[in-house]
Amino acid sequence: MAFGSNDLITSGAVREDFPILTRQVDGERFVYLDSAATALKPRSVIDAVTRYYTECTANIHRGRHRLSEEASDLYEEARGKVALMVGCASNEVIFVRNTTEGLNLAASCMGLKKDDLVVGFLDAHHSQLLPWMRGANYQVVRQGPNWQPDLDHYAELLRRRPKAVVVTHCSNVTGGFLPLETISKMAHDAGALVVVDAAQSVAHCRLRFTESNIDFLALSAHKMLGPSGIGCLVGRASLLRDAEAVLVGGGVVDFTTLESFQYRKIPHKFEAGTPAIEAAFGFAAAIDYLDMVGLERIQAHDHELSRAFLEGLKRRPRLKLLGPDVAEARAPIFSLYVDGLEDLSDVSRALSDAHGVMCRNGHLCAQPLVDHYTSGEVLRMSAYLYNTVEEVEYALSALDEVVRVYQR
Amino acid sequence: MAFGSNDLITSGAVREDFPILTRQVDGERFVYLDSAATALKPRSVIDAVTRYYTECTANIHRGRHRLSEEASDLYEEARGKVALMVGCASNEVIFVRNTTEGLNLAASCMGLKKDDLVVGFLDAHHSQLLPWMRGANYQVVRQGPNWQPDLDHYAELLRRRPKAVVVTHCSNVTGGFLPLETISKMAHDAGALVVVDAAQSVAHCRLRFTESNIDFLALSAHKMLGPSGIGCLVGRASLLRDAEAVLVGGGVVDFTTLESFQYRKIPHKFEAGTPAIEAAFGFAAAIDYLDMVGLERIQAHDHELSRAFLEGLKRRPRLKLLGPDVAEARAPIFSLYVDGLEDLSDVSRALSDAHGVMCRNGHLCAQPLVDHYTSGEVLRMSAYLYNTVEEVEYALSALDEVVRVYQR
Repeated sequence: MAFGSNDLITSGAVREDFPILTRQVDGERFVYLDSAATALKPRSVIDAVTRYYTECTANIHRGRHRLSEEASDLYEEARGKVALMVGCASNEVIFVRNTTEGLNLAASCMGLKKDDLVVGFLDAHHSQLLPWMRGANYQVVRQGPNWQPDLDHYAELLRRRPKAVVVTHCSNVTGGFLPLETISKMAHDAGALVVVDAAQSVAHCRLRFTESNIDFLALSAHKMLGPSGIGCLVGRASLLRDAEAVLVGGGVVDFTTLESFQYRKIPHKFEAGTPAIEAAFGFAAAIDYLDMVGLERIQAHDHELSRAFLEGLKRRPRLKLLGPDVAEARAPIFSLYVDGLEDLSDVSRALSDAHGVMCRNGHLCAQPLVDHYTSGEVLRMSAYLYNTVEEVEYALSALDEVVRVYQR
Repeated sequence: MAFGSNDLITSGAVREDFPILTRQVDGERFVYLDSAATALKPRSVIDAVTRYYTECTANIHRGRHRLSEEASDLYEEARGKVALMVGCASNEVIFVRNTTEGLNLAASCMGLKKDDLVVGFLDAHHSQLLPWMRGANYQVVRQGPNWQPDLDHYAELLRRRPKAVVVTHCSNVTGGFLPLETISKMAHDAGALVVVDAAQSVAHCRLRFTESNIDFLALSAHKMLGPSGIGCLVGRASLLRDAEAVLVGGGVVDFTTLESFQYRKIPHKFEAGTPAIEAAFGFAAAIDYLDMVGLERIQAHDHELSRAFLEGLKRRPRLKLLGPDVAEARAPIFSLYVDGLEDLSDVSRALSDAHGVMCRNGHLCAQPLVDHYTSGEVLRMSAYLYNTVEEVEYALSALDEVVRVYQR
């Protein structure tokens, strides 16, 4: 791909970097609209993973030999890239498997007790809901208009001195963003810690950990073009230092006898055993790739895709949208339901098998939100930088045909 | 590589499957003797990982579209291959990041209390030591002769009714195997659960989970030619069903409201969030590769490599071996120390940089064992199916030269 081009995305140059886009489904067209579940991977990410296997296969941090040093350097370089991306110190980045593990680790680091109040929002993914429901007194802010929380109710809950406020920055259902700065400022003024699920948002907008007064932030590489099996919990150093490790074993101690042990410094004390080394290499390559394209370009393209969705939906009144109808207020994640159509599994399968359109259906691991607004299921089309406006239009036309068949 | 050949390994055909073996170090020879830290990866494993990126990138288990179904099938196929390999039911295999996470999860599943007695052995890796030291009353069986535990002392500890016996099947330091069948039979007769760290052993010998009366068994893919970032805890279904999940979030519940949730069945209730999907594909390919070569062939080659080490050491009396001197009683993992030579970091680095030999030094995350027998550090050369007898001899000659320089 040519660097510095002005129309990297719209020219289709980006698409050429994703080898899977040459794939077909039964010899026909393939349109991937499931990026909110996992993003496709550019060649540079694949190459970075492969490089570990063909050039520097070694375990990290415990060897003095050449391959181990090369692998350790690249692994720590990946940590540094995450730190730069979210605006924190390197030792505040703990590599975990995924956002879910990160959020559970945040809950553990806080030493929650069953009667601690934790305030959340209705659009939480199960991973930002269950750890708090299970470990604390979890209360949810009422929904206000325009898919936004009722900030008066939020202020009321804050007066009850919660231990933490847990936010999903961008909903994996509605595509809408919550006003993170406002929410975190109000939380901090009330003495609450702020825990952010950035699984969706990090792929679509810039996050500033320290500047935004966030205490814990979790994300996954696989939603931002990187490998699965790696993500991170970013945590304020002072909180991490005081916390007990969840997993203990190789790599977390400087010293042990059979009676006592001494933890290593952060972040190492939280990374027990051999980590996902090649996934970290791929994660670093994904960050580089997004940097090269530029988040501003990606956002502009996101808005263009969202406008295409919104235009298309206007012409199809029987398709109901669960989420904001303003392109600039959302990521291109579109959850739909159809009055009178109950089983969206069949719709999803027909879109895939008859039209090559990959999208998702169900409660999307956000059951309270989806149950609140629908009969329990939505169909989600989610787009990213490699999708085109034409693909959005094609997918909506395909959906027309499928709905026509099922409503017959 | 040709299938069915009788000398797959000795002919060098196996070596051709490992692309990294064409690598050089500063334009010179490269000899990898750090397989106990992590094994090299054959082309088929690399291809299986890449296949996820180029053919069926999708999140698993939650989609009805073609790519998601392909990826889900391959992921569950990997689980089935692990089950076949260790002789358990598929739903007894929980994918985790590594052996360390697996052992911590086993400890959690047992609902250990601080005063529960747990009996272990001196050759435990930190990952099979710290979870028990931290969570229980951990007692160690005395060492007997020939690098074996004192079984009389073990029997004495069993009379105190431990909750669990935790075994490292093959030591990552001595290369020796513990008598797993004897230990687990004695433990079960005493009403104790048996937890096995099979991180090293699974690469070198056949394990039978159900037949051997094991309750929990943990292993990592990366030590057996697979990717890092994936391993598993195998647990008896009845124990897993009763246990509380450690991590909660997407994928672990069938149903949730804001007040209560219902766990999915095992193994899913333990696999929160997006797993390491492509790593599972690579894990399956590694199992297939080992099957194709055949564990019997690998063992025969292991013994040949061990004999070469033992012969070489006989001619070098100043190199002291920490482990059994019988080739058939061990894996080809050789930990050495040199009387009068304290800093083995320099030795390790010189072996790497002057001779291209990658090996490891330190306490090898088994500090109690290494401290018991040495002044705190060993140099470890560990070999696997792609190594040759000539490489072992070359490495020992290189070590002669390095020791000569440092002892000058």
